[in-house]
Amino acid sequence: MEIKLKTTKKPNLHKPILICGMPGSGYVGKIAIDYLVKQFNGKQICHIESNLFPPQVIIKNDGTSENIKYKIYKLENKTNKRDLLILTGESQPTTSESNYLISEKIIEYINKIGVKEVYTLAAYITGAFVKQPKVFGTSTHIERIKQMKKNGIVIMKEGIITGMNGLLIGIAKIHGIKGTALLGETSGYVFDHNSSKAVLQSLNKLLKMNINTEYLNVKAKANDELLSQIEQMKQTNENEGIKYEENKDLQYIS
Amino acid sequence: MEIKLKTTKKPNLHKPILICGMPGSGYVGKIAIDYLVKQFNGKQICHIESNLFPPQVIIKNDGTSENIKYKIYKLENKTNKRDLLILTGESQPTTSESNYLISEKIIEYINKIGVKEVYTLAAYITGAFVKQPKVFGTSTHIERIKQMKKNGIVIMKEGIITGMNGLLIGIAKIHGIKGTALLGETSGYVFDHNSSKAVLQSLNKLLKMNINTEYLNVKAKANDELLSQIEQMKQTNENEGIKYEENKDLQYIS
Amino acid sequence: MEIKLKTTKKPNLHKPILICGMPGSGYVGKIAIDYLVKQFNGKQICHIESNLFPPQVIIKNDGTSENIKYKIYKLENKTNKRDLLILTGESQPTTSESNYLISEKIIEYINKIGVKEVYTLAAYITGAFVKQPKVFGTSTHIERIKQMKKNGIVIMKEGIITGMNGLLIGIAKIHGIKGTALLGETSGYVFDHNSSKAVLQSLNKLLKMNINTEYLNVKAKANDELLSQIEQMKQTNENEGIKYEENKDLQYIS
Amino acid sequence: MEIKLKTTKKPNLHKPILICGMPGSGYVGKIAIDYLVKQFNGKQICHIESNLFPPQVIIKNDGTSENIKYKIYKLENKTNKRDLLILTGESQPTTSESNYLISEKIIEYINKIGVKEVYTLAAYITGAFVKQPKVFGTSTHIERIKQMKKNGIVIMKEGIITGMNGLLIGIAKIHGIKGTALLGETSGYVFDHNSSKAVLQSLNKLLKMNINTEYLNVKAKANDELLSQIEQMKQTNENEGIKYEENKDLQYIS
Repeated sequence: MEIKLKTTKKPNLHKPILICGMPGSGYVGKIAIDYLVKQFNGKQICHIESNLFPPQVIIKNDGTSENIKYKIYKLENKTNKRDLLILTGESQPTTSESNYLISEKIIEYINKIGVKEVYTLAAYITGAFVKQPKVFGTSTHIERIKQMKKNGIVIMKEGIITGMNGLLIGIAKIHGIKGTALLGETSGYVFDHNSSKAVLQSLNKLLKMNINTEYLNVKAKANDELLSQIEQMKQTNENEGIKYEENKDLQYIS
Repeated sequence: MEIKLKTTKKPNLHKPILICGMPGSGYVGKIAIDYLVKQFNGKQICHIESNLFPPQVIIKNDGTSENIKYKIYKLENKTNKRDLLILTGESQPTTSESNYLISEKIIEYINKIGVKEVYTLAAYITGAFVKQPKVFGTSTHIERIKQMKKNGIVIMKEGIITGMNGLLIGIAKIHGIKGTALLGETSGYVFDHNSSKAVLQSLNKLLKMNINTEYLNVKAKANDELLSQIEQMKQTNENEGIKYEENKDLQYIS
Repeated sequence: MEIKLKTTKKPNLHKPILICGMPGSGYVGKIAIDYLVKQFNGKQICHIESNLFPPQVIIKNDGTSENIKYKIYKLENKTNKRDLLILTGESQPTTSESNYLISEKIIEYINKIGVKEVYTLAAYITGAFVKQPKVFGTSTHIERIKQMKKNGIVIMKEGIITGMNGLLIGIAKIHGIKGTALLGETSGYVFDHNSSKAVLQSLNKLLKMNINTEYLNVKAKANDELLSQIEQMKQTNENEGIKYEENKDLQYIS
Repeated sequence: MEIKLKTTKKPNLHKPILICGMPGSGYVGKIAIDYLVKQFNGKQICHIESNLFPPQVIIKNDGTSENIKYKIYKLENKTNKRDLLILTGESQPTTSESNYLISEKIIEYINKIGVKEVYTLAAYITGAFVKQPKVFGTSTHIERIKQMKKNGIVIMKEGIITGMNGLLIGIAKIHGIKGTALLGETSGYVFDHNSSKAVLQSLNKLLKMNINTEYLNVKAKANDELLSQIEQMKQTNENEGIKYEENKDLQYIS
């Protein structure tokens, strides 16, 4: 087993923060992360190769294909003069142990380059469609819990976060790094740009990044229209005596 | 792969016994174990970190989250002046091998600190609801079989116990430590406080711990009411010619 | 990972042959093997412990339980003055790799004690009930194919044998040991003593062991009665225009 | 874990190209590869044994059986005086990591014997039956994309290729070897000789191998007849108002 980090050059960083988003249900975190890389013109500073990733090649837009890689970008945006790094990849490791090994390697690396705080962006699955998705949060440090409360983020009281979005903050803590997870409420049935937008707005409040979520509106609006149609259908059916039950109890986090 | 035991200090123990309960169907063992830690004011003497656990962080009541850890507590209660230790965790390892590796590590540690006897508390799944759950038992040593018989525990004659609740007693034996498993009869469909109570009462007879199971009664009573309702429904339905068949053959142990 | 062979003493063997049977569909091989150990008063000469086995303890008839072990017995019966060894266990390893590692370890051991030939007894699943199960065969060496043909065993022309019943003969070959698999036709739906009996009769012809399969008749007869009832039901139903189709194409070997 | 390459002798090769086909949905790649070995009288130059393969023995036509092996053949055909090597096997490794480890070992070996280009033949699953299957392509190098376009191969713009057919080209790239995958359109429901034929015709255009696909016609024709019958059924049903919807969105590659 091996994990190779290939760093393009030693990055010159000021009090860096790492923000992570991996593919998962609803692609909430991944959509948000890709948006950040694009808006703030992310420059790749590191990529990770490993035989612990799923055994796949990814086909790109120009027809070429390559092995799965995780990439770390440095954004041009600076929050309070702090540098922002982004970690993302095309898929999560498939076994329990490879999740740990890759997360540990990443935390070791960011520890070395001076990162003292990690955020992971993920999904909070409810099985129900909502117009204004809530953002849920948990953190390894109690001061972040307080800060999130002040910023309208719903604090989680129980449950688990599975996969790298959870492990990265858990392992961060062991290395003395603060870890915080922001989870956008989503049905889990569709690519949920609305939920990604909500997560970015919460992140914006916490980090004061000047994220412009406007460009997400087009796709988010399409989501809204889908919701309206579903609502209409339900209205019609309810008028006709058919009852829909949204499963409000169902909660799965990934 | 690694398993780290972090002991708070060298515990001063007199003829210690280890009692284990892990999450599983019906949560019979886990509920019982948590009850013991609470009633007898358990003090943590060791925790175990490992990348063999499921890749998750657990969210606590105050909103903070941390990696999965196994914990060993020392109870204030003493049985015949013997110290009682408790082992529990939030979830079982996911692969065959990690079950072995973690169980071996734990048995090695308790061997070192002088434990000569291990009890595991688990569930005996029947698929049927019962008002007075039986307690089933097996042991690595024939003298425990005899003692269990005298105390109203049903001795198992065949079958398997899967996961750490089984492995811990099997590996204990290899190290010259007595291992005994107590399994509470349960449907497997609900958190079964009634079954946990029955298991604790059997443990009480064997170890004379002065366990006060009264506080389990509230939740156990709720179970009973659920059962009564199910019974009533069946009565009504049977009067109307609908027949329920409880699957009395189904037996799965975890 | 580790596999420990514990040999009771260096066995004094004359041109030994190893016969193996592991649990699998229909338990055809396992029933046959257990029958041989009982009839020929097998004495255990080796047991194997490993953390590659399923994470379980097995409960025995007296109520005691212990870890899964593989055992090698020496039979009192001798074929042309050749010693007969039996390998069996309570369950097969769960991962691909552990199947290989354990099979390799066993073949290395039997190679060291002079075994030059291995037989594995297994099931040939058809999904159909038959009164007189055929026995199918394959071997790593062409001379065994010829010998099996002469003895009424149906030679397989394609397919795979999965698990240790297959791997043991494949790895045997790599070490210069002849490997032969005998597979009893079975529906796969029930413990098939009839099929085990047929396999033992074929083995008897090949090894001239004087196996008395009479004691299997009681249970095999129960199978036969079950078959008769199924036949009757089919007759009745066909008379009433209902048609059963036995899936004669379905072939799965384990 | 181990992977053993057994080379029959150091092959004398001129600018060799490796063509790979593994079993997968529709057996598109495997049928094409076996056809090449037969038509061009392939001579085995290397075989690979490993305990990372599925735990099985394969039964051959003469009744004998042996462990799973991957084999590399040298064809008698030469393209522009370049030697052609073929890699195939009976099944793909079962875990993520074993897919990587075996692919890495193979790429290391072919790198050592001078291979600078790899082709993998696989299936592009659509769930729909078509008379003239398209061939889809992706490559690690943009010049191959251009060449494929000129030769009527549909360039893929997104998606993933799972298993060794993908990994081999991805890992090839890391070692400075060009990798190209050709994927034959197929329903995924049947052994699709028609699709294999299309893939070979595309390969023929790229490598100018003088592949005579005539012998595939017999079986391909049987496929066509099957298609005609399906078409007729659909016509009849549509006339009767029943509508079939071919799932044109469904795309799974293996």
